[in-house]
Amino acid sequence: MDIATIVGLIFGAILVTGAILMGGDFMAYMNAPSVMIVVGGALCATMAAYPLARFLKMPKVVMKTVFAKPQNPVELIQQLVELAEIARRDGILALENMADQVKDEFLVSGIQMAVDGTDPEVIQSVMETELENLIERHEAGKGLLDSMGRFAPAFGMIGTLIGLVAMLSNMDDPSKIGAGMAAALLTTLYGALLANIVFLPLADKLALRSNEEVLLKTIVIQGVMSIQAGDNPRNVQSKLMTFVPPSLRTTEEDNRAA
Amino acid sequence: MDIATIVGLIFGAILVTGAILMGGDFMAYMNAPSVMIVVGGALCATMAAYPLARFLKMPKVVMKTVFAKPQNPVELIQQLVELAEIARRDGILALENMADQVKDEFLVSGIQMAVDGTDPEVIQSVMETELENLIERHEAGKGLLDSMGRFAPAFGMIGTLIGLVAMLSNMDDPSKIGAGMAAALLTTLYGALLANIVFLPLADKLALRSNEEVLLKTIVIQGVMSIQAGDNPRNVQSKLMTFVPPSLRTTEEDNRAA
Amino acid sequence: MDIATIVGLIFGAILVTGAILMGGDFMAYMNAPSVMIVVGGALCATMAAYPLARFLKMPKVVMKTVFAKPQNPVELIQQLVELAEIARRDGILALENMADQVKDEFLVSGIQMAVDGTDPEVIQSVMETELENLIERHEAGKGLLDSMGRFAPAFGMIGTLIGLVAMLSNMDDPSKIGAGMAAALLTTLYGALLANIVFLPLADKLALRSNEEVLLKTIVIQGVMSIQAGDNPRNVQSKLMTFVPPSLRTTEEDNRAA
Amino acid sequence: MDIATIVGLIFGAILVTGAILMGGDFMAYMNAPSVMIVVGGALCATMAAYPLARFLKMPKVVMKTVFAKPQNPVELIQQLVELAEIARRDGILALENMADQVKDEFLVSGIQMAVDGTDPEVIQSVMETELENLIERHEAGKGLLDSMGRFAPAFGMIGTLIGLVAMLSNMDDPSKIGAGMAAALLTTLYGALLANIVFLPLADKLALRSNEEVLLKTIVIQGVMSIQAGDNPRNVQSKLMTFVPPSLRTTEEDNRAA
Amino acid sequence: MDIATIVGLIFGAILVTGAILMGGDFMAYMNAPSVMIVVGGALCATMAAYPLARFLKMPKVVMKTVFAKPQNPVELIQQLVELAEIARRDGILALENMADQVKDEFLVSGIQMAVDGTDPEVIQSVMETELENLIERHEAGKGLLDSMGRFAPAFGMIGTLIGLVAMLSNMDDPSKIGAGMAAALLTTLYGALLANIVFLPLADKLALRSNEEVLLKTIVIQGVMSIQAGDNPRNVQSKLMTFVPPSLRTTEEDNRAA
Repeated sequence: MDIATIVGLIFGAILVTGAILMGGDFMAYMNAPSVMIVVGGALCATMAAYPLARFLKMPKVVMKTVFAKPQNPVELIQQLVELAEIARRDGILALENMADQVKDEFLVSGIQMAVDGTDPEVIQSVMETELENLIERHEAGKGLLDSMGRFAPAFGMIGTLIGLVAMLSNMDDPSKIGAGMAAALLTTLYGALLANIVFLPLADKLALRSNEEVLLKTIVIQGVMSIQAGDNPRNVQSKLMTFVPPSLRTTEEDNRAA
Repeated sequence: MDIATIVGLIFGAILVTGAILMGGDFMAYMNAPSVMIVVGGALCATMAAYPLARFLKMPKVVMKTVFAKPQNPVELIQQLVELAEIARRDGILALENMADQVKDEFLVSGIQMAVDGTDPEVIQSVMETELENLIERHEAGKGLLDSMGRFAPAFGMIGTLIGLVAMLSNMDDPSKIGAGMAAALLTTLYGALLANIVFLPLADKLALRSNEEVLLKTIVIQGVMSIQAGDNPRNVQSKLMTFVPPSLRTTEEDNRAA
Repeated sequence: MDIATIVGLIFGAILVTGAILMGGDFMAYMNAPSVMIVVGGALCATMAAYPLARFLKMPKVVMKTVFAKPQNPVELIQQLVELAEIARRDGILALENMADQVKDEFLVSGIQMAVDGTDPEVIQSVMETELENLIERHEAGKGLLDSMGRFAPAFGMIGTLIGLVAMLSNMDDPSKIGAGMAAALLTTLYGALLANIVFLPLADKLALRSNEEVLLKTIVIQGVMSIQAGDNPRNVQSKLMTFVPPSLRTTEEDNRAA
Repeated sequence: MDIATIVGLIFGAILVTGAILMGGDFMAYMNAPSVMIVVGGALCATMAAYPLARFLKMPKVVMKTVFAKPQNPVELIQQLVELAEIARRDGILALENMADQVKDEFLVSGIQMAVDGTDPEVIQSVMETELENLIERHEAGKGLLDSMGRFAPAFGMIGTLIGLVAMLSNMDDPSKIGAGMAAALLTTLYGALLANIVFLPLADKLALRSNEEVLLKTIVIQGVMSIQAGDNPRNVQSKLMTFVPPSLRTTEEDNRAA
Repeated sequence: MDIATIVGLIFGAILVTGAILMGGDFMAYMNAPSVMIVVGGALCATMAAYPLARFLKMPKVVMKTVFAKPQNPVELIQQLVELAEIARRDGILALENMADQVKDEFLVSGIQMAVDGTDPEVIQSVMETELENLIERHEAGKGLLDSMGRFAPAFGMIGTLIGLVAMLSNMDDPSKIGAGMAAALLTTLYGALLANIVFLPLADKLALRSNEEVLLKTIVIQGVMSIQAGDNPRNVQSKLMTFVPPSLRTTEEDNRAA
């Protein structure tokens, strides 16, 4: 869970609500049909653009973007170094049991292949294909959020045009013109809010989150290859540490010193 | 046929119709000349931008995007594995008859070349050229939908400008100003609807559909190459399975277990 | 000549004229100074962005985009196969006379080099440099049309701003406000029409046309190299045919069968 | 510290303040809630799009963009040449003490590795990984500024829509319409000012600054590699000078001549 | 000097002035504070985005884009061929004196290195680094013009918003509303004119000009390498001519024939 995303989303909503309350009548900004056309329209357009199975994964994608807690790469490297130490001391078959204690499925499957004596090139190829699948899934998820962020303002404008036409073709009572335009503008407001408070920031976040996960998987692949090759645990550590920014690296050394 | 696309298109249309009906007079939103200028203008601009033969394929492209049912890659791999088993057991010439039972033309032509004893490099080159042609045709199709999605709002704006000039140069009767502006805005509304409900989602969908088909053809090419090389059917399967996301892979294993 | 481009351009113009006529007074839409500022402004900006010699080629570029008739690639391949047959039967020197009958200058210069016994690598390098020059010329032409399509709406907006300022600084007679705004909007309308009916579709078309010509030149280069190498005409044909989409290929085979 | 950035920021602010003062009442342009929604909204959206740790680095990024003083590459090269001379004359171990006098941490760590007799390939790999980390940190910083420059105008528009709806749904007193619209437009103005005076120029500046720093680090890496290889100091100089534009190079020669 | 750029800039200005004069009162379009905010704002934002030294080069960049006269590549090739003839006949040392007669500094420095017996690889590396520096300087220059073309309309909008707020918060005298809006729109007009008549066309032109200069430098590098290698002058000519479009090539042959 990344606190910044949740705080950003909630504070954004509070800020806008506050601005509306200062403007006066809160109910003037609430309009169910306007919500329907913006949210519904964006959902329909996005649904039309994606296979059903992928579209239905949107809530999961949103949840993951908001709540996923990425593993600490330094902890992951420590774990890989420990596995390398065991493999060096007791032979790679000793990792057969360890595989039950490690939680990361991707790492487990890699170690299992190493224990089974699979050819190193095959291990690497299988793990990299898996990684490519992961990247593709992330891009598909980002595509969903991007689509929502693109179609929400578009349907906001469509709703405003529908409202304007309704107002303009029925201007007998001039006192209703203001209310009519206000209602028409609401959909544009909803579209802009949905895009800029929810979907565009989440799409950006998902792209960053994907980069982090790709880094972790890359470290795992390099680690498994080193473990199978029987590399010196010390070398495994310094090799994997080059993937980590220096600020994190020093923390790690402090920890060990402590 | 992908249900999501059809549901998305239909629900989008229903939603907009509902929003219009709530706004009041449905007929105020119906205007044949406005439809003409938006749809006609976008069609003319797209026609001018493409050779006639390609432009006339647009209905086929739309139909395909909406109704095409992509083959299940796991089923395709199973079929290739079966062909590999036959080839291994009875010799590659035994596939001569099988070629009549397989429906996928691309696979049939590949097997036929293998049966005819064509040089592997030639088979690969011919099949890859075919695949490149397919990708180009898909891009051309996507180009048509993109053009429509780009020109429809442009002609919506052009129609609105024409309507505004007409209204503004004839403001003797102030009571008609509202109706004139409403009519002028209709073309902008039509352009936005056409682009955001129909053409942009379909263009996105076509791009995804193309990726799927390219994956299938790539599997077929790899499969035919393996069959001709006389690879072990088990190896063929595990090799081809790396192209499929893990979620689909487990399904397949469950199926076999069942 | 590609009928679709001309039909698209003409029908687009008819459609817009019809929409204007329905709006009422045709003369309200005709305004020489507005045409001047949009067309003239876009021409000036494009002229400033290009060397004079290139700018002056714009009419030629437009004509070519509209009227150029691309050669049929299958006919071109047939011609190359015939030349390959002659070269094989009577020696490459027999092509000395053929060179007078072939119309394609690019092909003639290639054959001439082959007849002169020029080194194959030199022939390929010279022909490919020529092809790169062609691609660059096409891109320069497309750049001109893109610039016009980009600057026309910009000067439409500039004209509208000039008109609005004129109208707003002189509002003594309220009855003239409508006419003033109508006149101001005309330049925006002109800019949008020029861009969306003429320049953007033609720029797209030119890009497609360029791809076709590059394909033809590529076929010629491959053909000349095969002829000089003395390849079997049958192999030349099947080699060159891989550049052509399957739909065209079957047509060709039907023709031969007929 | 780069005087141009500070002068540009300050003069931009003065210019806009002057323009407002000329328009009349300065207080009409001051509105705390409008500032809140634009600045707060942009901050919330940016916060939602980034991990907390990275978001909190924004003030540091801004400060660095404005005040960082890039090292003169010619001075850096002189320093590297001096180190190369010492290493050549007294052996590389003589640099052990020098490392205390050099301020650039990146250079110190490189020399230290060379003194420790680390393998050249390892030194290069470690230093290049460090450089890649630097580039990534710069890009993350630029991403923050870009996000602010993108979300500030978006929340400006959102604020204006909220204000317009408030004004339109309460038009009983026509004399307040003007003031209402003025207040509504303020947020759009704030968004445009923030983006165009502060965030977009700073993002551009940061990209340039990053290029400069990458150049310096590249020179350091090349220099350390040359020092370790025991290259002739004269060759080290001419090799490193190719990274510097000729205008700077002549200055350097003048300096030496003087 | 390229006549098209100057003619385009001047005619564009005349056209706009004419359109304004037709609209009536020329003075209504002249407003010093509006010029200040658009030009000053764009300059401040661009200054903030660039180091001072680079920003101050803008007038030089503009002058060069407008007045630079690119060398004729065919003349350059003739000169290189002549130098190759001298080098072949009298030895490369004979070029020592020639170096005084050649004006192109880049060519002179290349020949000087050849005369000094510098290693060919070093000559090539030094000259290519120089070329890369040139390309970077051109891109920096184009970046300045792009920034001005991007920030001018942005500050036009900012000025209009400031004017609108001033007008709207002070609507006591309805007769002044028109004049106030006219004044507010002026800055948008200025921003659009500056961008579309001056900065965007010049930025496009600079990109083309840079391509031409890069071509010339590439020819010089190839020529110097050939001269040093002692290539046959005839081969040098045909080798360098492949860099020139065929239309220019024939001109050259005509010239020689004449």
